[in-house]
Amino acid sequence: MSFKLPQYKEPDFEQAFLKNAPNVKTQKVVKEGVAPDNYHGTTIFPEYFKINGNWVLAKESRMDCVVVVKNDNEVEIKEFRNLKVGENVVVGRTEDASEGIYVYTEGFKGEEDVDETFAFRSGRSRETAYSKDYDDLYDVLRHEKENGYIVWVLGPAAVFDKDAREAMASLIDNGYVHAFLGGNAVATHDLEAGMFGTALGQDIYTQKSMKDGHYNHLDLLNKARRAGSIEKLLEQENITDGIIHACVKNNVPVVLGGSIRDDGPLPIVISDVYKAQNEMRKHTRKATTVICLATQLHSIATGNMTPSYTVVDGKVRPVFIYSVDVSEFAVNKLRDRGTLEVKTIVTNVQDFLVNLKNNLVK
Amino acid sequence: MSFKLPQYKEPDFEQAFLKNAPNVKTQKVVKEGVAPDNYHGTTIFPEYFKINGNWVLAKESRMDCVVVVKNDNEVEIKEFRNLKVGENVVVGRTEDASEGIYVYTEGFKGEEDVDETFAFRSGRSRETAYSKDYDDLYDVLRHEKENGYIVWVLGPAAVFDKDAREAMASLIDNGYVHAFLGGNAVATHDLEAGMFGTALGQDIYTQKSMKDGHYNHLDLLNKARRAGSIEKLLEQENITDGIIHACVKNNVPVVLGGSIRDDGPLPIVISDVYKAQNEMRKHTRKATTVICLATQLHSIATGNMTPSYTVVDGKVRPVFIYSVDVSEFAVNKLRDRGTLEVKTIVTNVQDFLVNLKNNLVK
Amino acid sequence: MSFKLPQYKEPDFEQAFLKNAPNVKTQKVVKEGVAPDNYHGTTIFPEYFKINGNWVLAKESRMDCVVVVKNDNEVEIKEFRNLKVGENVVVGRTEDASEGIYVYTEGFKGEEDVDETFAFRSGRSRETAYSKDYDDLYDVLRHEKENGYIVWVLGPAAVFDKDAREAMASLIDNGYVHAFLGGNAVATHDLEAGMFGTALGQDIYTQKSMKDGHYNHLDLLNKARRAGSIEKLLEQENITDGIIHACVKNNVPVVLGGSIRDDGPLPIVISDVYKAQNEMRKHTRKATTVICLATQLHSIATGNMTPSYTVVDGKVRPVFIYSVDVSEFAVNKLRDRGTLEVKTIVTNVQDFLVNLKNNLVK
Amino acid sequence: MSFKLPQYKEPDFEQAFLKNAPNVKTQKVVKEGVAPDNYHGTTIFPEYFKINGNWVLAKESRMDCVVVVKNDNEVEIKEFRNLKVGENVVVGRTEDASEGIYVYTEGFKGEEDVDETFAFRSGRSRETAYSKDYDDLYDVLRHEKENGYIVWVLGPAAVFDKDAREAMASLIDNGYVHAFLGGNAVATHDLEAGMFGTALGQDIYTQKSMKDGHYNHLDLLNKARRAGSIEKLLEQENITDGIIHACVKNNVPVVLGGSIRDDGPLPIVISDVYKAQNEMRKHTRKATTVICLATQLHSIATGNMTPSYTVVDGKVRPVFIYSVDVSEFAVNKLRDRGTLEVKTIVTNVQDFLVNLKNNLVK
Repeated sequence: MSFKLPQYKEPDFEQAFLKNAPNVKTQKVVKEGVAPDNYHGTTIFPEYFKINGNWVLAKESRMDCVVVVKNDNEVEIKEFRNLKVGENVVVGRTEDASEGIYVYTEGFKGEEDVDETFAFRSGRSRETAYSKDYDDLYDVLRHEKENGYIVWVLGPAAVFDKDAREAMASLIDNGYVHAFLGGNAVATHDLEAGMFGTALGQDIYTQKSMKDGHYNHLDLLNKARRAGSIEKLLEQENITDGIIHACVKNNVPVVLGGSIRDDGPLPIVISDVYKAQNEMRKHTRKATTVICLATQLHSIATGNMTPSYTVVDGKVRPVFIYSVDVSEFAVNKLRDRGTLEVKTIVTNVQDFLVNLKNNLVK
Repeated sequence: MSFKLPQYKEPDFEQAFLKNAPNVKTQKVVKEGVAPDNYHGTTIFPEYFKINGNWVLAKESRMDCVVVVKNDNEVEIKEFRNLKVGENVVVGRTEDASEGIYVYTEGFKGEEDVDETFAFRSGRSRETAYSKDYDDLYDVLRHEKENGYIVWVLGPAAVFDKDAREAMASLIDNGYVHAFLGGNAVATHDLEAGMFGTALGQDIYTQKSMKDGHYNHLDLLNKARRAGSIEKLLEQENITDGIIHACVKNNVPVVLGGSIRDDGPLPIVISDVYKAQNEMRKHTRKATTVICLATQLHSIATGNMTPSYTVVDGKVRPVFIYSVDVSEFAVNKLRDRGTLEVKTIVTNVQDFLVNLKNNLVK
Repeated sequence: MSFKLPQYKEPDFEQAFLKNAPNVKTQKVVKEGVAPDNYHGTTIFPEYFKINGNWVLAKESRMDCVVVVKNDNEVEIKEFRNLKVGENVVVGRTEDASEGIYVYTEGFKGEEDVDETFAFRSGRSRETAYSKDYDDLYDVLRHEKENGYIVWVLGPAAVFDKDAREAMASLIDNGYVHAFLGGNAVATHDLEAGMFGTALGQDIYTQKSMKDGHYNHLDLLNKARRAGSIEKLLEQENITDGIIHACVKNNVPVVLGGSIRDDGPLPIVISDVYKAQNEMRKHTRKATTVICLATQLHSIATGNMTPSYTVVDGKVRPVFIYSVDVSEFAVNKLRDRGTLEVKTIVTNVQDFLVNLKNNLVK
Repeated sequence: MSFKLPQYKEPDFEQAFLKNAPNVKTQKVVKEGVAPDNYHGTTIFPEYFKINGNWVLAKESRMDCVVVVKNDNEVEIKEFRNLKVGENVVVGRTEDASEGIYVYTEGFKGEEDVDETFAFRSGRSRETAYSKDYDDLYDVLRHEKENGYIVWVLGPAAVFDKDAREAMASLIDNGYVHAFLGGNAVATHDLEAGMFGTALGQDIYTQKSMKDGHYNHLDLLNKARRAGSIEKLLEQENITDGIIHACVKNNVPVVLGGSIRDDGPLPIVISDVYKAQNEMRKHTRKATTVICLATQLHSIATGNMTPSYTVVDGKVRPVFIYSVDVSEFAVNKLRDRGTLEVKTIVTNVQDFLVNLKNNLVK
């Protein structure tokens, strides 16, 4: 395998504008969950803050947050709502070190593409050639399986089809999934398939609607609520396949964030969405690769929490993020909402999952 | 105005199969939030339950819920999660009165369309002729303004454009909106526009990106959180236009359900999604017309809570539900998730709102 | 392999309404390309015409055409524009034998799906489970390779990607393609890839834009026009891979219909669209399976020419037709334009082609 | 009205690199329709060619063509297929005057937008604010009505709806349409609506399917073919409304290019697509504004023929081009195929046309 992680080039801190930059200024939080007026807001890029004469890199960053200085030598990137009274928030809206804040976008820059006045096909769409993106992704995943932390984000479409559901379970079984994020729907329909062979009452192989099939997901939810936990449900209903089963079997953490669309919900679903964000971010803090399939809501939520880089064993490396959906609008929206480095693939996630299984699982 | 509300034709309870039907059976709830195994699940259609020899209609219904018998002469339609120990839940999965449960789908049936073996264009899409749907909707809204309860459900796209935002505010000012449902985003960007003239940093008229514009929605949220309420924010920041301002001015209730995508959030947002559902349903219980624009999440959530009929002054009448989106998939998904009676319009909601204002507001 | 061709059940001509039906009436064509006023228009279904007391089945049918009686014992299905003065056109707009015209839609009817008042997910979309459709298609193609006539219809997206282009070429090499229909674009970009490794100047593997790459397709076209034929072009420019090369190598007929979008065009392209239709129909007359990928124009054109049945060795059998596109609207439009029996798959055709190759080619 | 045409800033030909540039080189055509190998291919931008020491601007340009020098002092931009033996074709693939070819992209450059490292919403989509685009377009059309040449390109969706069809007819009646380009479908269904009130058998107001409605467009086509011309058809069938009727009444030229999808076709349709291109280009040569609605095929065809500038009364001015469709992919594809300056609006063309009528027609 020829895969090589792109090397991060640290800023040269001996450059005058960095060397001579002042320390950051901070202001104290006076009301829970509210930042001082001139707070600095974070981006997806590596940001350095000068504290006591040293440039300190934000680890476990995310965009649209504020920067809290801790212990005079480190920074924590926090959501506004999590600010506590008395915390010291970095202020200043420059990015060029003039206020001790340096947003560094060149760390992974390589050679450029040809840029011409007149060219065709600048965007990514259904007409983009995806062969190399697939090949690269296979390499990435083989590498990350051992050396990274792969976070998956799935919408329900990924479990509406038998082959896709089996492919995903097999990727879990083979170590390609370190955390599973989703909502009530993907888990409910996966478990519905495990119990009835259907999703929303429709057979996930033959497409036939079962008689009274619209009861299936309600029955599943009701039984799950009676069981009180996913583990007990799997046992009591003898569910032995599918994605949730594979996660439980392989101790892959599952975070299901609630939404106003939910029936049920399953007992595991987190009803407070900001608590759900906190749980999700526990995984995006560690993420080295994030793969988002067929869900705008969960993809954008996760994308918002995912920086373009992370620090592993003291070294800065990129975080790879993929968004796969059959709609250009859905994959592009992630970028429009600030996740600028996302790699988008426009296809049906069923085929995407089967491709991955075919190429990664022997 | 020629508008006439479709007449509901009550079932003829003298028919033998109804007259001779047994009373419903019920079973008691033994665990909070869990139904007995053979519970009856509701649809969007009028359902009658035989109790003590009388056929009792479910009022304020919604699909995928259970039926609780109260006081031996009425029924309440409840979500599973809201079931209390000891409540009597109707059991039985027939719909033909044979177990005292009658699902009645013929109440508003009129003449049929021509049905032929070979025909073109059976679905609804961008190619459907919408002139009459618009004309009908204008009639519906003029009627409902005085005689109904119009619930609006908006996604953020509705406030990304100046004319659309003004059109919506003007519909509120003129009495066409009785409740406003949405999420953190639509309200945040509406207020951002009120304060900065932008949405996500982009001018809602000129489309120009403001310098440091990506701070605008964060600043708005931070100020809102400091103010502690929408009302105080409007006052302190002197916001005098837009949708939220119009709702506050006209005492139109606003329900904002949280989601895992939210920044902030605004102080008014309900962080627990099931509490948010309960608040939303307070309005869908009363709704006579529901209009859903440019949001899959909130549209499907609201659609799930909206039955095809309601009871006003003792009379059964239809609930009209519209879903408007530029994507066929988005509007059709509402139907695929069980909201079978929805009228879909495939267009940009900006134009839709301007059309409504042009035709309804002098 | 378990594949079995659905059996056609002939109408029982002993039924009174068929036995007693009158002979068809005809009227003569008096102006070239114009039918008599009350002409009978064809559908996609098997249609029988009573001539001299015998029920005669239309062979090689297509919809929206007229029926010409020949030799008093057979019928030909002709486009209006191809009518000749003096031909005898069947008149009458009934389908129930009362005028000697019988449209028979029950020939392949099997058991029905469950039909319920309240159900989810009735349409086909990105959320449909496609595993079985794929499995069935593999079976169909293995059968048709030896026993049928498989017509492919491709848009340019199918050659914009290296793996997809190779997969298609390999299906041709392995006997799964009996005729190839398309336009100037798919052939031009396939040949551009063969010569430059690009499509519209973009590398079909690395996605990199070549310097002056926008000249590539123009150069290809110019060289092709100089060469005067595809065969000479392949030889002179030493093109040894791709779809067109595979067609030439394997003597698979290629029909390229012109369009007003065309640059060039290639020498093989038919500039008169109605002559192009005639050439295309030569293949749809023989078709037993039609697969349309990523082109609305050519798919609907071909769909219009493809009946739901054909006659092979004196036996009526179904014609299978598939439409694959990443857009629901595109695949559904085929159905909306009268190709009612089409099986639609919503995905990126790149993945579709790779799936087929993986499963059909060893 | 505040509308001002952007001023064109001529290149300063006194600059050394222009002044000292050599004359262009040319090579003779030796085979009909084939350019010499090193031909120069045109873009959408103003291009100057040095001939006998003078910089000569290409008038009536279009992209992807070649440049023929005439009379030693002018150039003609020709499609490859239209090259004649002996014509002198400009060779050279530079754009910087070094070979006497200067592609000038700065003629209409104004002030730039803010450009930041981190920003949201860079593309155009359903979420773009279109109010100002509409306002600008109204200004443009009021100006062009008297001072320009407005070319419209319509797909059939524009006539599937009563209000949209009437709006378009009214724009024609009021002088906002100088040429009408389309295909067989848009004209057929417009005339079907004029004769039967339907499009493809469906009432364009009530949406009801007429009995035997699938015969309507076939009947219309058959009658048109019998009549032999549109004018006679209008008279014989007493068609007094709609788009084609308005064009005929107001002497607006209509060009209908054939396609392989066509039924019929109407007698006016040009069956040879390259002759159709020639006819279309007669209008794009004169065009100052082009508006493309709901047709990928005709929009891209026309876009390909439309340069970013034209020369009116000896002055260079921009050509405005709009593409309106409910699908982002459709409008973006025009740009991806080289029409870089197109302004895209994502909405249903029905609403777009009604908006224009409301704002332009009293």
